[in-house]
Amino acid sequence: MNRETYCLLENYMIGCMKDTAHDKEHVYRVLYNALDIAKTENNVNYDVLIASCLLHDIGRKEQFENPALCHAVVGSEKAYQFLLAHDFEVSCAEQVKQCIRTHRYRKNTPPQSLEAKILFDADKLDVAGAMGIARTLLYKGIVAEPLYSTLPDGSVSTGENDTAPSFFQEYKYKLEKLYSNFYTERAAAIAKERQSIAVEFYNSLYREINSAYQNGTRELNVIVQP
Amino acid sequence: MNRETYCLLENYMIGCMKDTAHDKEHVYRVLYNALDIAKTENNVNYDVLIASCLLHDIGRKEQFENPALCHAVVGSEKAYQFLLAHDFEVSCAEQVKQCIRTHRYRKNTPPQSLEAKILFDADKLDVAGAMGIARTLLYKGIVAEPLYSTLPDGSVSTGENDTAPSFFQEYKYKLEKLYSNFYTERAAAIAKERQSIAVEFYNSLYREINSAYQNGTRELNVIVQP
Repeated sequence: MNRETYCLLENYMIGCMKDTAHDKEHVYRVLYNALDIAKTENNVNYDVLIASCLLHDIGRKEQFENPALCHAVVGSEKAYQFLLAHDFEVSCAEQVKQCIRTHRYRKNTPPQSLEAKILFDADKLDVAGAMGIARTLLYKGIVAEPLYSTLPDGSVSTGENDTAPSFFQEYKYKLEKLYSNFYTERAAAIAKERQSIAVEFYNSLYREINSAYQNGTRELNVIVQP
Repeated sequence: MNRETYCLLENYMIGCMKDTAHDKEHVYRVLYNALDIAKTENNVNYDVLIASCLLHDIGRKEQFENPALCHAVVGSEKAYQFLLAHDFEVSCAEQVKQCIRTHRYRKNTPPQSLEAKILFDADKLDVAGAMGIARTLLYKGIVAEPLYSTLPDGSVSTGENDTAPSFFQEYKYKLEKLYSNFYTERAAAIAKERQSIAVEFYNSLYREINSAYQNGTRELNVIVQP
């Protein structure tokens, strides 16, 4: 890929990115993760990979405005039309479309090509470790969801089996489980390195909150008379 | 304090709380922290302390809508009027007003009374450790500020000496420095216990991002031809 093509794709991406948890820096991190993974794989089509990484989240705005839409579906179509309009080969545009279409984990659309698997893993790496914690918290702020839920007895839920959305619910439902779901060995190895800080952070946060609630409600019951 | 008075204050507080980083659970944590600290101090006026904790952030909405306003000033006046309107003694209302007025660190308004110092410390504890990281990230999501800034050479700033707002800037400017600013020994001890997870989290996040940018930009310069 030459610099002019890279800048064309980059500028289109920048114009499409809006929210803080999926801003352009997320796109650069996914691209950089993908290049790291690609070094350990053979016969990578870098034109397809770089275009797919740069454009993978351009459907986010549409999904944010209408949650019934899937950003992977919308984004893959937007990318395909953009590439055709700018004289990319049909074969390249179709491969990019497939990569973007399958970068979001859904059982019925697993990534097929090598480039699609690398994009998938590179995107998932950005929800691993400290970055996964940070981005999830940013997103909870954006959508005004709380850190945790309290149970009917007043204690703090760990998030396990919660139905109400919260950071702890998302951690238990998604972040805690993602470390075994990688297609490439390199991505799995990077994720493994980053796992312990995420686990420690969750455990520390839960401990801080739970000890405050346990001690606090006990004290309050002594001080506040019926 | 009796249960009826507690519920009156609690319900007024709940009606005033709006944003996710300063929601009612923050208020309960501050109250529980304050009760923990109070156990290690003598002659605490619990009526003043509990009312001050429950009402300390009721001016947040006004500050959020108009950043020129200080929530401590607005909240102290709202609390004073509410307490007088509900037949609290003038002396109690005045002490609560002073506690709320001085809970936000400003050089010209340090907390004076024991209850004011406990509220100040209890509120600061909720920005220490994993909770401080979590709440700061939620808040950055709410106000749409990024995790970090990049420097003119494309590398990632540590946040030190940044002028643009970001999570890293806030960490260096505020979170990293708060551990030496407590009035009570108990609060300083709790903060110290919680410090290492905050430091580890920041270091891990910076390392993850910086290594991705360093490797990624180097690879990109090899692959993308001028």
